[in-house]
Amino acid sequence: MKAQLGADEGKHKFVLKTPKGTRDFGPKEMAIRERAFKAIISCFKRHGAEVIDTPVFELKETLTGKYGEDSKLIYDLKDQGGELLSLRYDLTVPFARYLAMNKITNIKRYHIAKVYRRDNPAMTRGRYREFYQCDFDIAGQLKIVHEILSDLQLGDFVIKVNDRRILDGMFAVCGVPDSKFRTICSSVDKLDKVPWDEVRSEMVGEKGLSPEAADRIGEYVQLHGGLELIEWLLQDPKLSQNKLAKEGLGDMKLLFEYLTLFGITGKISFDLSLARGLDYYTGVIFEAVLLQQENEHVEEPVSVGSVAGGGRYDGLVGMFDPKGRKVPCVGVSIGIERIFSILEQRLEASGEKLRTTETQVLVATPQKHLLAARLKLISELWDAGIKAEMLYKKDPKLLKQLHYCEDMGIPLAAIVGEQELADGVVKLRDVATREEVDIPREKLVDEIRRRLEP
Amino acid sequence: MKAQLGADEGKHKFVLKTPKGTRDFGPKEMAIRERAFKAIISCFKRHGAEVIDTPVFELKETLTGKYGEDSKLIYDLKDQGGELLSLRYDLTVPFARYLAMNKITNIKRYHIAKVYRRDNPAMTRGRYREFYQCDFDIAGQLKIVHEILSDLQLGDFVIKVNDRRILDGMFAVCGVPDSKFRTICSSVDKLDKVPWDEVRSEMVGEKGLSPEAADRIGEYVQLHGGLELIEWLLQDPKLSQNKLAKEGLGDMKLLFEYLTLFGITGKISFDLSLARGLDYYTGVIFEAVLLQQENEHVEEPVSVGSVAGGGRYDGLVGMFDPKGRKVPCVGVSIGIERIFSILEQRLEASGEKLRTTETQVLVATPQKHLLAARLKLISELWDAGIKAEMLYKKDPKLLKQLHYCEDMGIPLAAIVGEQELADGVVKLRDVATREEVDIPREKLVDEIRRRLEP
Repeated sequence: MKAQLGADEGKHKFVLKTPKGTRDFGPKEMAIRERAFKAIISCFKRHGAEVIDTPVFELKETLTGKYGEDSKLIYDLKDQGGELLSLRYDLTVPFARYLAMNKITNIKRYHIAKVYRRDNPAMTRGRYREFYQCDFDIAGQLKIVHEILSDLQLGDFVIKVNDRRILDGMFAVCGVPDSKFRTICSSVDKLDKVPWDEVRSEMVGEKGLSPEAADRIGEYVQLHGGLELIEWLLQDPKLSQNKLAKEGLGDMKLLFEYLTLFGITGKISFDLSLARGLDYYTGVIFEAVLLQQENEHVEEPVSVGSVAGGGRYDGLVGMFDPKGRKVPCVGVSIGIERIFSILEQRLEASGEKLRTTETQVLVATPQKHLLAARLKLISELWDAGIKAEMLYKKDPKLLKQLHYCEDMGIPLAAIVGEQELADGVVKLRDVATREEVDIPREKLVDEIRRRLEP
Repeated sequence: MKAQLGADEGKHKFVLKTPKGTRDFGPKEMAIRERAFKAIISCFKRHGAEVIDTPVFELKETLTGKYGEDSKLIYDLKDQGGELLSLRYDLTVPFARYLAMNKITNIKRYHIAKVYRRDNPAMTRGRYREFYQCDFDIAGQLKIVHEILSDLQLGDFVIKVNDRRILDGMFAVCGVPDSKFRTICSSVDKLDKVPWDEVRSEMVGEKGLSPEAADRIGEYVQLHGGLELIEWLLQDPKLSQNKLAKEGLGDMKLLFEYLTLFGITGKISFDLSLARGLDYYTGVIFEAVLLQQENEHVEEPVSVGSVAGGGRYDGLVGMFDPKGRKVPCVGVSIGIERIFSILEQRLEASGEKLRTTETQVLVATPQKHLLAARLKLISELWDAGIKAEMLYKKDPKLLKQLHYCEDMGIPLAAIVGEQELADGVVKLRDVATREEVDIPREKLVDEIRRRLEP
């Protein structure tokens, strides 16, 4: 991707590249991206969501104090006089700013945009988020994630759910001191990548937790299941005595009842090891994970991992409210970049030819000096709403024109030569079968439409 | 738009606003924007264009030396260690960088993206550009602009065309010294806003042009017309002796022949006063201008002006090429922000109610304790691909649910009460006519599809 032209030449000394961590999207990459976007947007629309957009940069102070240690990854703009600005780091904080500014408390919106992190090398782009206000609608979000992952045919997946209150209750009954909840939670968050032994040593060695407390946590975090696990934990002699855990388990039970009505419990796993990194979650959290592919077309196994996540965060909008009023929010973020690279790898492996245009007809001529005839015919097709192209050369060879159809996947060629012009017809060629039929000019548009019908 | 909450409160001292020159797009604004985008993208697709995307920032040196005096309007990123970066100022320079980097010389692509200028207050966003390589295809671009402006029903418009070579030839035969071509060209560029007298004083007073030369220019720049004007100028005793002007007029004549085949000469005006600001144009230039609206619905006349422009620039890609090879390019840029504000004002004036979602059915219940029934039914509709919503409250009142349909423009309500559940039916309500019919549950999806058919 990164050509370094001209570095050694006298005349132009700059390096020809995109900034570190960024890339261009050419027509092929864009075609894949648009296919994924289409599936995701249709799903949001099917669920009645509205769309919003916010600026790419925010006042620096809007982002200050929202990301903890990650703040060092924020891109700041240079002080060129005027306001101090930063590129948005996620869509959640600008959205919370939008809600507080417009005093909105009831919302169901999605937002598609790039976010900017001085990460190395992960440039997280194109995040989709959907936000709902109401508590029980976390079920609706899980349904959306389920539909999107099914529609995109990414392979088998599981959506893990947990609740910050259950985690905190669990930490309490295991004997973790209050002050260590967040840092022990971060250790638990590593369980999807690191085995329990290592996480345990971190808890005990680095974070100073007692070995007994760590072992008690170890027993809980290996649990995962469905409604029966929730019921069982509600009977757990220790956990059932903890107010937070009980609240969380009660809500989790209700959530599973809704998910049963949606018919998607098969892919949902209540998983006590799910912790999620970000600090701002306050209730239910979830994460969708792709399972190892067993796809015969894919030679190298596609890297698996989290492709969507979210949860409930009630405090963030309040940080922008002069009176600190809480606005309950639940949000989902779809990892479009990861989905995109899976689709890209899979497409490459399958050898499927991806179209980068939607052109239906190539207007072609078999002889020279027929540019005017092509221009006139293509104009008629465009005006009839037909997607048409011609080669941008004065006198292209017919073979070259037909090769172009094959290269670009254009299904039809409309050929006008001297004979066709004299006869008032157009030769319509099916590019795949190579069959050619003369069509009276006035019937051409109808015939093309008929042939393109699904 | 800019609420200033919390400025006087003790707890949260920040100002709640978007950065100067930026705005949020709420659901209503987005619905308008998407309507405009849809028309523009369909047109590009109809013409067989591919789409590309480049990063929002570039290496600072990529932008250096491309914009002349306007460089001061570029947003730089803060030096946080690593590469020096700037936000893109237009799409042309990143695109030229993309072409040079990938050694592409034959292209027909469009690019939709925001660009960033430290202008006051104009934040130019969402530019569409299309690029073609071949010379005669400037006609194709004018056809695209013609189709887009017609499709969007923005009112009457004219597309002015001229050629930098005709301008330069005209300056030469009027006695403008070579060194003053560009600065006199900038003066001519002001003629769409300022009367000739003022432009003339600027030329003579500020720029030191002889009054005779200025008067000769004055005669030429008032000329505008079609093929007959081109023919007449080709006979002009002075202009026809100038090599550059003759070349430009020859190409202009050819362009008008193509435009005649496209049937759009009625809206095209060859206008000798068109100069275009940017330095990088080298051949044909054009600009689409909306004419004064006479729309009874619009109380205040919508501000008129340029909504699209472009031209041929052959030198830019060469600036990135180690050997400085020229790549011929012609590009068009659609002023989506201006189009957007015209559509927004017009919509406001018309009182038309704009839908911000595409929801087809609201799933409603007339009694309490029927949340489960709603969840089950809505899930069936989603799975059948029907766009459905329900209110995110446990027990909403029926009246509230029906008002929501009216507010949001949802055409149908699917109502399940205790009686309907017992009878195995759903009450389907036409929101506009208030007519209600009981539909057997298993026939509901088909009935909804039938009613929603266009």
